[in-house]
Amino acid sequence: MDGILRLSHADVRVPDLELALAYYSEVVGLVVTGRTDGRAYLKAWDEHQHHSLILSEAPTYGLNSLGFKVSRESELDRLANRVTDAGITVQWHEPGELATASGATVRFVAPSGHTVDLEYGMGQVGNGLPLSNPPPAPDNLIGMHPPRIDHIFLLCEDVDGITEFFAEVLEFRLTEQIVADDGHQLATFLERTHTPHDIAFLTGPDGGFHHLAYWVDEWNDLRHGADTCAYHGVPIEVSPTRHGATRGCGLYFFDPAGNRNELYTGGYSFDPDDEPTTWTEAEMGRAIFTYRGQVDSGFMTVHS
Amino acid sequence: MDGILRLSHADVRVPDLELALAYYSEVVGLVVTGRTDGRAYLKAWDEHQHHSLILSEAPTYGLNSLGFKVSRESELDRLANRVTDAGITVQWHEPGELATASGATVRFVAPSGHTVDLEYGMGQVGNGLPLSNPPPAPDNLIGMHPPRIDHIFLLCEDVDGITEFFAEVLEFRLTEQIVADDGHQLATFLERTHTPHDIAFLTGPDGGFHHLAYWVDEWNDLRHGADTCAYHGVPIEVSPTRHGATRGCGLYFFDPAGNRNELYTGGYSFDPDDEPTTWTEAEMGRAIFTYRGQVDSGFMTVHS
Amino acid sequence: MDGILRLSHADVRVPDLELALAYYSEVVGLVVTGRTDGRAYLKAWDEHQHHSLILSEAPTYGLNSLGFKVSRESELDRLANRVTDAGITVQWHEPGELATASGATVRFVAPSGHTVDLEYGMGQVGNGLPLSNPPPAPDNLIGMHPPRIDHIFLLCEDVDGITEFFAEVLEFRLTEQIVADDGHQLATFLERTHTPHDIAFLTGPDGGFHHLAYWVDEWNDLRHGADTCAYHGVPIEVSPTRHGATRGCGLYFFDPAGNRNELYTGGYSFDPDDEPTTWTEAEMGRAIFTYRGQVDSGFMTVHS
Amino acid sequence: MDGILRLSHADVRVPDLELALAYYSEVVGLVVTGRTDGRAYLKAWDEHQHHSLILSEAPTYGLNSLGFKVSRESELDRLANRVTDAGITVQWHEPGELATASGATVRFVAPSGHTVDLEYGMGQVGNGLPLSNPPPAPDNLIGMHPPRIDHIFLLCEDVDGITEFFAEVLEFRLTEQIVADDGHQLATFLERTHTPHDIAFLTGPDGGFHHLAYWVDEWNDLRHGADTCAYHGVPIEVSPTRHGATRGCGLYFFDPAGNRNELYTGGYSFDPDDEPTTWTEAEMGRAIFTYRGQVDSGFMTVHS
Repeated sequence: MDGILRLSHADVRVPDLELALAYYSEVVGLVVTGRTDGRAYLKAWDEHQHHSLILSEAPTYGLNSLGFKVSRESELDRLANRVTDAGITVQWHEPGELATASGATVRFVAPSGHTVDLEYGMGQVGNGLPLSNPPPAPDNLIGMHPPRIDHIFLLCEDVDGITEFFAEVLEFRLTEQIVADDGHQLATFLERTHTPHDIAFLTGPDGGFHHLAYWVDEWNDLRHGADTCAYHGVPIEVSPTRHGATRGCGLYFFDPAGNRNELYTGGYSFDPDDEPTTWTEAEMGRAIFTYRGQVDSGFMTVHS
Repeated sequence: MDGILRLSHADVRVPDLELALAYYSEVVGLVVTGRTDGRAYLKAWDEHQHHSLILSEAPTYGLNSLGFKVSRESELDRLANRVTDAGITVQWHEPGELATASGATVRFVAPSGHTVDLEYGMGQVGNGLPLSNPPPAPDNLIGMHPPRIDHIFLLCEDVDGITEFFAEVLEFRLTEQIVADDGHQLATFLERTHTPHDIAFLTGPDGGFHHLAYWVDEWNDLRHGADTCAYHGVPIEVSPTRHGATRGCGLYFFDPAGNRNELYTGGYSFDPDDEPTTWTEAEMGRAIFTYRGQVDSGFMTVHS
Repeated sequence: MDGILRLSHADVRVPDLELALAYYSEVVGLVVTGRTDGRAYLKAWDEHQHHSLILSEAPTYGLNSLGFKVSRESELDRLANRVTDAGITVQWHEPGELATASGATVRFVAPSGHTVDLEYGMGQVGNGLPLSNPPPAPDNLIGMHPPRIDHIFLLCEDVDGITEFFAEVLEFRLTEQIVADDGHQLATFLERTHTPHDIAFLTGPDGGFHHLAYWVDEWNDLRHGADTCAYHGVPIEVSPTRHGATRGCGLYFFDPAGNRNELYTGGYSFDPDDEPTTWTEAEMGRAIFTYRGQVDSGFMTVHS
Repeated sequence: MDGILRLSHADVRVPDLELALAYYSEVVGLVVTGRTDGRAYLKAWDEHQHHSLILSEAPTYGLNSLGFKVSRESELDRLANRVTDAGITVQWHEPGELATASGATVRFVAPSGHTVDLEYGMGQVGNGLPLSNPPPAPDNLIGMHPPRIDHIFLLCEDVDGITEFFAEVLEFRLTEQIVADDGHQLATFLERTHTPHDIAFLTGPDGGFHHLAYWVDEWNDLRHGADTCAYHGVPIEVSPTRHGATRGCGLYFFDPAGNRNELYTGGYSFDPDDEPTTWTEAEMGRAIFTYRGQVDSGFMTVHS
């Protein structure tokens, strides 16, 4: 099990850190694990790592960087070489240099304009359960309390190019794609965890951030998430629905800064020898939202 | 337990009876119990009565009539007198006269322009399970297969007036209302079964038909309903969501003729001494769809 | 809608009132509405009445009385006369006489040895939600937090006799029965709310109390209830399962005093002209627990 | 992503192949993909490989062999060398030699007495959905229709020894263990897929087979599975419940030959740097069944 293990974390910009922290801790129900000047660290309750979300105070919203967890230190070298061979400059960072509890990190800017971290050895803080005879969950969970991060959805101009980069250089596998009538990729879904996607790309401006998704176990959790939004006056963009691509179910809503969040569940297990699924441009609406079969323009154009 | 027991059935117009029959039996998963020239009879699987839906061939879509089940024959007389005392002409029909297996029926046109039947003694056909040592459900259920009818939602110009008629004359209880800033009722929810609504009215043209709802037991059944629609290409108008009014959850979709259907679940138990809930005009969007907090114009204007 | 509306409340004995109160409020998640010397009053969150459970300090566990909610004051007279005509002495109690916030009450001892209250006008305290533009639920619910009481299950020697009494005198309808090979009833299920049962009787000692059940909306709530028991070390007698009789699903567990509780969901809607279902003695195991098809001896013999 | 990818399949003995085939295809709802003299091949609907279950006609029930899917052909060599270095003889088999559509296979007998296949390149047959614009699921699924295989649970005398073998030689990671008061392992859970377990061992006779588990997505699917068993008269051993170890939920039942099956859902995602969870002998009951906190003796002693 070598190379990139999974999506590790995202560093997201918010203009009002206190407000964002209240939202992510009380509404989404993440656990705050650290706080420094201009930054807060959070994790989903069942994650053992120090953080899966960094909130960074900034004048506007959007994504600073995303990080992948790498299986071992030697794999950092191997992957760094592959990125360098692809003509991209990498920077090495010591543990603790980029963030509280961060591990050894290889940082580079992907062709899509996104800052990507490959990280090994982030500090472990445990999931709040004892290692001996634990109950199924802590008793103090509030809000939506998803157990873990799931995937990130980004925008860029050249989806074909970034997809090839993630597949060839970073060793992701393509699970699904939406292909335009002229043959270029409108959206692609890529995985390292045998799930439908750890990262996905959609046509849009380079460096664009569509959403960050946390996993929940069941369809009922999406209703609980939507009820939680409604209770707290959090704007819901898309009520619980099923995606055509990934076959998973999701709920979309916005943090106070305008960053889009998803709660996601379902999907399938993908073997390396499985064939990717292709959606035609005419079926793009259904690929994204099976039930309505169409996508509101805001979903395609509002982003950060 | 006297007077009106519950919503019994609706008689709905469809231009293409074969197509409608295929949809209601295979997609919705109702059971066909009868067929005559220009008419088909269907029931939900766990209903014991002969029908809860009559499909009537007609040039356009819409509602011919709705029927309520009355507790005993003598109550037909009592209720007929109350309607007559309200200045409305009633017609008496013998069992079998208005429809296959119909009971003794008092028919009248309500002030909202809807034809209403009060019926006692519709023929019972059973729910397909044996009366001795039954399994929890038949094994041959297909499509959405809701167990029973739930409520009907109608349109009329004078919601205050029809609400008073249903409350004062037909002895319904008001559970919820949406009240305009000028004090008149925009929508009202009325019950006889201690559920949030057996019938509801929304401001619109007299005689208008908004939707007919079948009950399902759980939120998961709404996803199954939506998946079923998606599989069969049935247009979904509103993906699974929660209502503010009634607190129930629903899924809206259309039959091939354009009649709106709902699968509904949840809600609460209403005692006669409970106070009704009032929604202000400003919160109408949330009263109808809690999650989005707004209603697409089509939902308010498309009807039959 | 006359006569008995529904099960209103139960008065249950507990030796340690503080312990029982902690359990019912924090684990079951009922709301404490009153407290007097030796007594505590609780309601499920979505109930509007002052209480559905009275805890009475006593040397042992068991049931003091059960109460039914009656539709109007005049119906108290009518029902009292029917009970008197059956040769049973009734006692009239003024509002507030029997319990905090109690209404006018007709009390008698049923042939099964159980003390039964018919009550009109218990004080209303609301469900914690505003009457204008409410959210779907309060935000402070803890534990299992069922929305309302559902049914009570009692024991007595002569099930045939008590069933006839409840049907003939109190106007209940029989929905299901388990019949011994010799023709007498081993268990019966009776309703006033068109659900599968508001009360049920099982062969056992007169005055015996098998369990009190609260309603939850979905199968998922039974798992949440079981997780809650497990977290708090509450003994679970029967993990989430389906009943043959009623077709509902339930979870059984014990309060600290030894009184059996159930969380119940599902079931069907029962019309007055529906036929009751009969289970044979050979199928009694499946009538009670569909999945295992057998009943542990404790379930039949442990009671209070 | 190298080495063993996941559990691939199990080869299970059944005395009556026709009966077993009817059960696994109609009740469990697996898809039959092949049939030869004395053998039948089945897969779960969403699996792409030719089979995850081989039924082999034999005088008694039990497990012939289990197979793991290996990431690439060169990894077969590497793993075969590791097994050989551990002093165990391996046999190489050509594609198609051991079973219909089988890939290149390294077969050996593990120290626990179980025949283990490491396989690369089993034939792919697809999941029944088109590769372009697919619906979320085929429309013809029957029975429980789990989407895929999940894990296998075996018995052996020396759990410490087999656990070390699977960890050191086959590169599995230990997620949980039940440890006796004297320090030896009573049960262990091991994974390659970052789930709580792909294989588990329990103290018992060498070569013993406890159960084979298929994955379902939600708790509701366990009820559907139990309803399906009840409908078809399939004996349910354990109604839907939660495990302490793995935190997942399961349902246990038996095939007509006596082989134990599980439907399993839930659990967590396990990172390589997460710490395993340890259960003490005193808490073994809760480790296995959280709700009851105890294990019926049959569950520990009935096996094949």
